[in-house]
Amino acid sequence: MSANTDQYLITEEPYYQPQGDEVALYQAAYEERLPVMVKGPTGCGKSRFIEHMAWKLGRPLITVACNEDMTASDLVGRYLLDADGTRWLDGPLTVAARIGAICYLDEVVEARQDTTVVIHPLTDHRRTLPLDKKGEVVTAHPDFQLVISYNPGYQSLMKDLKQSTKQRFSALDFDYAPASLEVGIVTKETGIDEATAGKLVKIGETARNLKGHGLDEGISTRLLVYAAQLIKRGIEPIAACRMTLVRPITDDADIVATLDHAIDAVFG
Amino acid sequence: MSANTDQYLITEEPYYQPQGDEVALYQAAYEERLPVMVKGPTGCGKSRFIEHMAWKLGRPLITVACNEDMTASDLVGRYLLDADGTRWLDGPLTVAARIGAICYLDEVVEARQDTTVVIHPLTDHRRTLPLDKKGEVVTAHPDFQLVISYNPGYQSLMKDLKQSTKQRFSALDFDYAPASLEVGIVTKETGIDEATAGKLVKIGETARNLKGHGLDEGISTRLLVYAAQLIKRGIEPIAACRMTLVRPITDDADIVATLDHAIDAVFG
Amino acid sequence: MSANTDQYLITEEPYYQPQGDEVALYQAAYEERLPVMVKGPTGCGKSRFIEHMAWKLGRPLITVACNEDMTASDLVGRYLLDADGTRWLDGPLTVAARIGAICYLDEVVEARQDTTVVIHPLTDHRRTLPLDKKGEVVTAHPDFQLVISYNPGYQSLMKDLKQSTKQRFSALDFDYAPASLEVGIVTKETGIDEATAGKLVKIGETARNLKGHGLDEGISTRLLVYAAQLIKRGIEPIAACRMTLVRPITDDADIVATLDHAIDAVFG
Amino acid sequence: MSANTDQYLITEEPYYQPQGDEVALYQAAYEERLPVMVKGPTGCGKSRFIEHMAWKLGRPLITVACNEDMTASDLVGRYLLDADGTRWLDGPLTVAARIGAICYLDEVVEARQDTTVVIHPLTDHRRTLPLDKKGEVVTAHPDFQLVISYNPGYQSLMKDLKQSTKQRFSALDFDYAPASLEVGIVTKETGIDEATAGKLVKIGETARNLKGHGLDEGISTRLLVYAAQLIKRGIEPIAACRMTLVRPITDDADIVATLDHAIDAVFG
Amino acid sequence: MSANTDQYLITEEPYYQPQGDEVALYQAAYEERLPVMVKGPTGCGKSRFIEHMAWKLGRPLITVACNEDMTASDLVGRYLLDADGTRWLDGPLTVAARIGAICYLDEVVEARQDTTVVIHPLTDHRRTLPLDKKGEVVTAHPDFQLVISYNPGYQSLMKDLKQSTKQRFSALDFDYAPASLEVGIVTKETGIDEATAGKLVKIGETARNLKGHGLDEGISTRLLVYAAQLIKRGIEPIAACRMTLVRPITDDADIVATLDHAIDAVFG
Amino acid sequence: MSANTDQYLITEEPYYQPQGDEVALYQAAYEERLPVMVKGPTGCGKSRFIEHMAWKLGRPLITVACNEDMTASDLVGRYLLDADGTRWLDGPLTVAARIGAICYLDEVVEARQDTTVVIHPLTDHRRTLPLDKKGEVVTAHPDFQLVISYNPGYQSLMKDLKQSTKQRFSALDFDYAPASLEVGIVTKETGIDEATAGKLVKIGETARNLKGHGLDEGISTRLLVYAAQLIKRGIEPIAACRMTLVRPITDDADIVATLDHAIDAVFG
Repeated sequence: MSANTDQYLITEEPYYQPQGDEVALYQAAYEERLPVMVKGPTGCGKSRFIEHMAWKLGRPLITVACNEDMTASDLVGRYLLDADGTRWLDGPLTVAARIGAICYLDEVVEARQDTTVVIHPLTDHRRTLPLDKKGEVVTAHPDFQLVISYNPGYQSLMKDLKQSTKQRFSALDFDYAPASLEVGIVTKETGIDEATAGKLVKIGETARNLKGHGLDEGISTRLLVYAAQLIKRGIEPIAACRMTLVRPITDDADIVATLDHAIDAVFG
Repeated sequence: MSANTDQYLITEEPYYQPQGDEVALYQAAYEERLPVMVKGPTGCGKSRFIEHMAWKLGRPLITVACNEDMTASDLVGRYLLDADGTRWLDGPLTVAARIGAICYLDEVVEARQDTTVVIHPLTDHRRTLPLDKKGEVVTAHPDFQLVISYNPGYQSLMKDLKQSTKQRFSALDFDYAPASLEVGIVTKETGIDEATAGKLVKIGETARNLKGHGLDEGISTRLLVYAAQLIKRGIEPIAACRMTLVRPITDDADIVATLDHAIDAVFG
Repeated sequence: MSANTDQYLITEEPYYQPQGDEVALYQAAYEERLPVMVKGPTGCGKSRFIEHMAWKLGRPLITVACNEDMTASDLVGRYLLDADGTRWLDGPLTVAARIGAICYLDEVVEARQDTTVVIHPLTDHRRTLPLDKKGEVVTAHPDFQLVISYNPGYQSLMKDLKQSTKQRFSALDFDYAPASLEVGIVTKETGIDEATAGKLVKIGETARNLKGHGLDEGISTRLLVYAAQLIKRGIEPIAACRMTLVRPITDDADIVATLDHAIDAVFG
Repeated sequence: MSANTDQYLITEEPYYQPQGDEVALYQAAYEERLPVMVKGPTGCGKSRFIEHMAWKLGRPLITVACNEDMTASDLVGRYLLDADGTRWLDGPLTVAARIGAICYLDEVVEARQDTTVVIHPLTDHRRTLPLDKKGEVVTAHPDFQLVISYNPGYQSLMKDLKQSTKQRFSALDFDYAPASLEVGIVTKETGIDEATAGKLVKIGETARNLKGHGLDEGISTRLLVYAAQLIKRGIEPIAACRMTLVRPITDDADIVATLDHAIDAVFG
Repeated sequence: MSANTDQYLITEEPYYQPQGDEVALYQAAYEERLPVMVKGPTGCGKSRFIEHMAWKLGRPLITVACNEDMTASDLVGRYLLDADGTRWLDGPLTVAARIGAICYLDEVVEARQDTTVVIHPLTDHRRTLPLDKKGEVVTAHPDFQLVISYNPGYQSLMKDLKQSTKQRFSALDFDYAPASLEVGIVTKETGIDEATAGKLVKIGETARNLKGHGLDEGISTRLLVYAAQLIKRGIEPIAACRMTLVRPITDDADIVATLDHAIDAVFG
Repeated sequence: MSANTDQYLITEEPYYQPQGDEVALYQAAYEERLPVMVKGPTGCGKSRFIEHMAWKLGRPLITVACNEDMTASDLVGRYLLDADGTRWLDGPLTVAARIGAICYLDEVVEARQDTTVVIHPLTDHRRTLPLDKKGEVVTAHPDFQLVISYNPGYQSLMKDLKQSTKQRFSALDFDYAPASLEVGIVTKETGIDEATAGKLVKIGETARNLKGHGLDEGISTRLLVYAAQLIKRGIEPIAACRMTLVRPITDDADIVATLDHAIDAVFG
């Protein structure tokens, strides 16, 4: 594979609304090439933040959506059979290490816990990636950085990062934006009026208070944006909210009733 | 593979009897390209609805029946060995993303929970599908949309969608049609007289009341249509009902007796 | 593979002794191409019945003995490596769909529960079989029908068909033939005298009464035929019965003693 | 593979000491081509008996030592890659069905329970073996017979033959020979004097009484023969017995002491 | 693969601060070619020590990051398909044995317990590595040595080295450096002033006291270095400490509060 | 593979200190070609004994370190892809059977219990090895013998040899040498003075008394030799003992203290 660096560059500025000093902290971590872990609940903007930083720093970004079936070879590379025999194909982590990209392992905790040890030599003073199957040791490009995302709400005894992995990262906490900021995000992303956006954010807050009391997670900003999109398209707000804020996140009849009631109260 | 778009087009209007505002809601969601989750029990018409909408919108439809052995590669694609070496074959999700089809993942919860993360980058602002093994990032065609079906009655601790997946979808609830509509459906699909159709629907209602009291699910509209088909073919109604409405759905002698009794009462 | 239809045709009438209206019911179901599930205990004649019907209807019959290691590819097909690269080989289900055979999935519950979803699009109005790995959607031949067998005595929490599968089938119950019919079957199949056949059937009835009281299943008609065959060959009846009716089905010393005693009482 | 029938023929009569009418019963079963299950504890002569019968009947014998990793393909056959592409290789069961051998599946219960369903169509009136992956249905040679061995002492809830498999077999019980016969076997196989053989058999009886009281199984005739062989070689009887009759079968210090004591009492 | 020895040589002296007589002990063990196990918590300098010793002894160093998916073939080698057929590729352990490198199996306990038996013949008087699949027995180069790392805090019933593996190693205990040494390390690695380094070490000590009381492991020296790096870059010390010393290692709100409080107390 | 017999011959006499009549017993077993099981704790000299016997008998020795991932194919052989298609490669067991080697399956209980059934036909009167995948039955060379090692301390319900495997072997018990012999071994292997060797053996005895009281196994003779080697190299005895006799075998602080105390008492 000729790793075409350009295809990994982000050419347009991704919209991102900072909530604190995260941009400066990330920038300092990147200057030191510290590995970074971004922590926070579903749909609070972690991936968007990394895209924004990659754009700001002008670095290519290689994102890998981790999953339980992902093997070390999926990250590192493998031999393919060719007309002329086998040929080595770099995996996304190796490509990133070679071209000096930011490599973003999304939902890393989904990967098999022990597969994640392949990133260890890239995250300490060695900054190398041994391709055992190829007999090559890749030294990371000086601009390479590793970033992982992590949702603390998911962790169980079965699925957690090992301490020996965690202790290789600096970490930034993320959460849903406070109400005033979130109203701005919904308005900016959909062009809906501020009053409606405010009502949607209010419903979001109700749901987030139910977290741990029947809901695994609250309503993400993304779903509020969905609701606003449908309302802009002319869908009646109550129907739009039920379709985007309630039905996707729960099957529990009581929770559904509670949330529907909250929607009625706000929009009724 | 030359992805022949035409073979995925639905050329004849599939019969679909709307039960509420689901057509308008889906249409608005499609205009915004929101991912859609259709929820509801077995055989209530979820797949038929999606076919109907694909026909109405004039979009090709690619359906994938999900199963536990399905890997991410089955969705995304894989390398095949050819006379000239390996050759990449797009999977159905990739084909759909390229040609702008509606991709319908039927019974998605059967797929390994973590395999479903491959759909994440297609369901947020990125609308991309990274083919890690090919070193290519596919940007979805502007007309592409993702739809999944989901049966809340099945979910267990072992098998459920993750919140980070759910929060990427808008959702529509489906259920069996109310009696008057269902009589119409059975009549229309089989040409049976309305009186007989009414009797079948009545038996269906009895069975649905047993849901949770010995039956995992009620009798689907599909089975009522089966019964009507056999009756039209000259099979005695009681025998036809036993064969299509009772024997397939339960092995429990008490439930069999209860349902047989209900059939006798209606047709006896 | 050139699917040679002829090899799947049944050229001689298989002996089958009807026990009720199952032939007419099956015939009507076939005319409507309804999927059929045949239910009943081991060795009561389910497979024989399907062969008989395939012969009667003049349709080719493709039987697949399901097992837990069977993957969807075993049913649907796979790529094989050839001198000229890879070549697609239709699986038995695909062959049946193409040539219009009756496809009989024997002991379907042995297959991985989730593998069985591949039959779904063949069992509703679509009557299609998507070959995802080949990028082809097979439309079933108008004469194609799907039949599965199912032994209710086996089902456990771990192994059962899903409701969404069951609700796609009509179903016929089978059981061991009543005594008079069974005497006829044993006589007809082995040429043994009616008195001896009657004694064997009597032993069979004793064993079937033990079902659930130490025996998982009763003695099948097939084993009674085995006993008659050995007696015809000159083996002493008590030794023949022990070898065919007792030793194969139980290791429990008490049950062995009870059954041996019953044999002594009948033949002693 | 050119299935060389000759290599499966047994040219020299294997020594076998009948214990009852098993030779006549097996012969009658073979004449009817009934599948046979031989049941009994480890090392009591089941495999030897089948070899003896194959020799007596002049049929080739193909033995398969079953194990948990054995797949249906190991029995039936698979495609191999050749200079000219893929080539089908018959498995041992297919070879046996084609050439009319006795196919002996040793310790069949070790094979995955569900893998064993592949033998079903060979064990009823069909006498066929569908090679699904090759698209061929093999009709068994008229002389083909299937035999399985089975150790009732092993069966657990996890590992047992299914009733639908058991009910396809006739069955013969085996056990260790009675003392007088066993003395003859040890003498004949090793040339040791009858007095020493008698002492060894006595120790064997002691151990068999411990079965279920600390020993999973008694001492097999094979181990008695081992002891006699070492004694013939000049090893002191007590040391020979410890090495062959005690150390292999138990790690329990109490059982070791009990058995050593019994040896001392007999040979001391 | 032509095993290029040079790429495994460490050309610059890696910084290492000895804590006791470990250098002399390791050197004596190397002279006798005793296998060495380095034990200790995450990030206390085990890997650095081995690099230092490899540099000091002038031996090439081959490091393998072990993981649960690692098979014996990943260590030993495998056949690859080439234009001219299959070709053997030595694994890293085999390369090390051939060229006389120090082979360092990092976090060996992650590898499947039973996979580790492949190292046994290399760790006793035989000093050989049988390549079963190649039919070759490799005799280790006289300079070859095996080193493994091991974190006692991780071991569970499920994951531990077998005694038969442990008893093949000599072992060195490692722990975090005492405060005075650690201040030196942080100063030397980052150029930060001693006062700030002292404050960081103080926070580290607080966290290490929480080990077993809510924290699985304390804060490693590596994380202290991260904090110092960010402070040097101009990040406010409290923000730098939260990002590097707290957020990566815990999700527990109480522990976070305790550690944040400790940071405030030291830097506030 | 051309099985080069010479590479398996042991050309120099391996040092072995007999503890009883094991040499004579093994020799008699070999003359009768009885399969042998060597039982005993880790590091007591089982492997060394087999090497010694192979040297004494002048037979090639093929050792296989068993592990849980080992399949029957790893023992028996497999097809490899070659420039001219597939080519069969004998596994180590097959090579041994063909050339008349002693095949030593080390730690056989690590192999999957059911994989071990492949050795059955080699361990009874048949002395054959069926290569099912090749369609060949290998008759063992007259000089072939099978030996397995087995550590009774490890056996659990999950991992034990089956009785049907055990009953195919004669067995020899091994244990650590008595003190006087062990002092001789340590002296002979390292050249250390007898007084120091005696002290080391004394520490070993202390540790062996802790077996079952906090230690899974005692200190093996091998570790005593390690300690002596380091002492000979000039390492202070207490440091040498801690590094070789304590740190490798336990992580338990109490046991470490007890053993360190014993070392201090002996060498202090």
